Amino acid sequence: MTANNLSIGGPRPSGLVQRQSTLFVQTSREVSGEDPSLNAQLLTQAGFINRLMAGVFTYLPLGNRVLSKIEGIIRSEMLSLGASEITMPAMHPKEIWEQTGRWDTLDILFRLKGQGDRDLALGPTHEEVITPLMAGFIHSYKQLPTAAFQIQTKFRNEARAKSGLLRGREFRMKDLYSFHLDQADLDGYYEKVADAYRRIFERCGIGHLTYYTAASGGAFSKYSHEFQTITPHGEDTIYCIPNTKIAINKEILDDAEAIKEILPAGISVQDLEEKKAIEVGNIFKLGTRFSEACKLSVSNATGGKQTVIMGCYGLGPSRVMGTIVECLSDGKTAPINTMVWPAEVAPYPVHIVSLARTIDEQQSGADQLVNRLASAGVDSLYDDRMEVRAGAKFADSDLFGIPVRVVVSQKAAEKGGVEVLIRGNNQSEIMSEDSLFKLIIGR
Amino acid sequence: MTANNLSIGGPRPSGLVQRQSTLFVQTSREVSGEDPSLNAQLLTQAGFINRLMAGVFTYLPLGNRVLSKIEGIIRSEMLSLGASEITMPAMHPKEIWEQTGRWDTLDILFRLKGQGDRDLALGPTHEEVITPLMAGFIHSYKQLPTAAFQIQTKFRNEARAKSGLLRGREFRMKDLYSFHLDQADLDGYYEKVADAYRRIFERCGIGHLTYYTAASGGAFSKYSHEFQTITPHGEDTIYCIPNTKIAINKEILDDAEAIKEILPAGISVQDLEEKKAIEVGNIFKLGTRFSEACKLSVSNATGGKQTVIMGCYGLGPSRVMGTIVECLSDGKTAPINTMVWPAEVAPYPVHIVSLARTIDEQQSGADQLVNRLASAGVDSLYDDRMEVRAGAKFADSDLFGIPVRVVVSQKAAEKGGVEVLIRGNNQSEIMSEDSLFKLIIGR
Repeated sequence: MTANNLSIGGPRPSGLVQRQSTLFVQTSREVSGEDPSLNAQLLTQAGFINRLMAGVFTYLPLGNRVLSKIEGIIRSEMLSLGASEITMPAMHPKEIWEQTGRWDTLDILFRLKGQGDRDLALGPTHEEVITPLMAGFIHSYKQLPTAAFQIQTKFRNEARAKSGLLRGREFRMKDLYSFHLDQADLDGYYEKVADAYRRIFERCGIGHLTYYTAASGGAFSKYSHEFQTITPHGEDTIYCIPNTKIAINKEILDDAEAIKEILPAGISVQDLEEKKAIEVGNIFKLGTRFSEACKLSVSNATGGKQTVIMGCYGLGPSRVMGTIVECLSDGKTAPINTMVWPAEVAPYPVHIVSLARTIDEQQSGADQLVNRLASAGVDSLYDDRMEVRAGAKFADSDLFGIPVRVVVSQKAAEKGGVEVLIRGNNQSEIMSEDSLFKLIIGR
Repeated sequence: MTANNLSIGGPRPSGLVQRQSTLFVQTSREVSGEDPSLNAQLLTQAGFINRLMAGVFTYLPLGNRVLSKIEGIIRSEMLSLGASEITMPAMHPKEIWEQTGRWDTLDILFRLKGQGDRDLALGPTHEEVITPLMAGFIHSYKQLPTAAFQIQTKFRNEARAKSGLLRGREFRMKDLYSFHLDQADLDGYYEKVADAYRRIFERCGIGHLTYYTAASGGAFSKYSHEFQTITPHGEDTIYCIPNTKIAINKEILDDAEAIKEILPAGISVQDLEEKKAIEVGNIFKLGTRFSEACKLSVSNATGGKQTVIMGCYGLGPSRVMGTIVECLSDGKTAPINTMVWPAEVAPYPVHIVSLARTIDEQQSGADQLVNRLASAGVDSLYDDRMEVRAGAKFADSDLFGIPVRVVVSQKAAEKGGVEVLIRGNNQSEIMSEDSLFKLIIGR
């Protein structure tokens, strides 16, 4: 065995160059009125997504990259918590849903028939799978706490699918489940997950708009928590405590006892600020609701049997993608309202636009720049189309919303560099390639 | 905007350390007889997968990592072809399947009802989605050729789901679709995809067992091709041309004309070697079968309309995972038949087994080694369990089949290093940590 066939620990791979000349997707100036939500309109116009039917979308090349970057952020934060990644099936036998009593009560469950007329369901959530799974592996208190998550396509038979990626019938979901011996351990873990969620929304660029929102709990816990991102078109209403990132939802507002418990001294209901918001995540103490139904118990230190205590934590990457568009799009750079992607979730961190009119000019100019970026490990979207007018290229670039646009042209070269526009600003500036590299990769 | 919030082009991330003490999965000495296939047995025993029902599995932490590594290899080779990655929905409206006439004829199609009694299907393949999608974007011959692929969960209502990951009702699939102006262009691309497939199977460690196998084509093309990996338990039979990696399948064997065309001069049917095999991929020239049904045409250079010519190319990551187990497991290292993962698809490239009996010993020994590996960017699985006997640790290590096992113990330290076993060999050797690093990362 040689180092070669182990092929690990090698140098950082070079960056990807996506030439627009080979991208099949076209932007469009107008989109149909089938889904009037801002995120559906802007993502469709830019060619990031395509609607197959209500609540069901294809992620096109640029949109697929955004989604996978959001999922990458979520994955890294879940792994940092020490949770193991798994992938559970989307297709479930009826029996597991009967065991918890939800086959008959969960109206958004897609039901279907398999071979031999067998009743099946498509998973909108996975307590029914993970709890028996854990019961097969966990027998002693020494194996607790533990946690597992997946990032997966889920299905909900929504009565009204709407709002683009915000409420889909088929959507992406990260679901984390944690398992504990006692309440105190769950309580501590719950706070750690809340912190991880805050880091995720921060990295996705919506941290400053996202409120930790108390909601009603269940039989086991008084409260659960939603992460609500404020935006005028949100379908939820939350009540924010001034000068904090904390809020309560409608249920809590109507619960005098909870209000008294949650609001800090000196703050009354009248002080709360009512805001529209999108629920981008929720965390929930399940207690023994599912572990009892699925017989998940462990032997404890004194030799007795103890039912395992559970928590579940949802976060939808596709909904986060829609929320970023709803919240961060603006008309600052372009004359129209356009998407603005935070660097870490942008389909590419840099959009190189060549205005070369000959192949020679392009090869000695923009081609060199994208290759140099690739060598430094930076991916780029490269508008190398020779037959498209500069105006149309700029219009496409505005629609894509990539945070840094670099125009490579004879005019810019004569002024000593390339023309760099940081999206969100309304003014571009000429800088040398070295300054551009310093800006992008810090060296 | 600062370099910080662009956060790209930074140093290579450090390697992941998975401590077995925090892994919820347990290996098992025996498994149920529900699925007697070798891959189901070995993967279940090692805790890589868990069966939810026939043909439907959960990928547990180690299995999930193998699957995602296989998918990473496939993705990189598809991107090298210049194809764009997208993600199409699993859930389809009936209408798109009626347009191609397959709603009534495809018996493995899962059918279900959505809101308003709407007929829906779960996608076993995606010609019905991608062809109309392309028709919305592609209008001129200048946009051809182009290609898009996805790696996605697919569904087939198989009459008999069996053989572990080899024939599932829910499974992972990479499907690539290419679009061309004329037959010659499709033919050339088809060969390039075949080469990419050969590289994929090579990197997955089954290249030497995989035959490029002629199968019958369709209305448009005489032949399609399967990639068949030979193994005694394969459910297909192929007929191999001696001293080549080329074969024909049963259909072709029964077709005298095809035989004459395909077999090289001097080779007759009697010379062919009959072998059992698993189909790990197939490539197919669709011609205009779907582009006609879905009205995908372009204007050509002379201003006329021309129907687009298509190819489709399937490769199942989950089936490849099962095939690797079927083909590469052996009893060379361990007294029992165990999995042996090629380095590039192993859940972790290295398994560090600590035999320390005190925390101090572990901290000054194996902990240091895994940290040094992580700093070098190498992921490792780390058996840090203090309460487990050495024998049980070795048995687990055999079941996991990670290519390099490194035992850190006082005994090995006294002999001047660590004890390294390369799986597939039957003898371990003592080497210094520096030699181990040289072996693993070549420096």
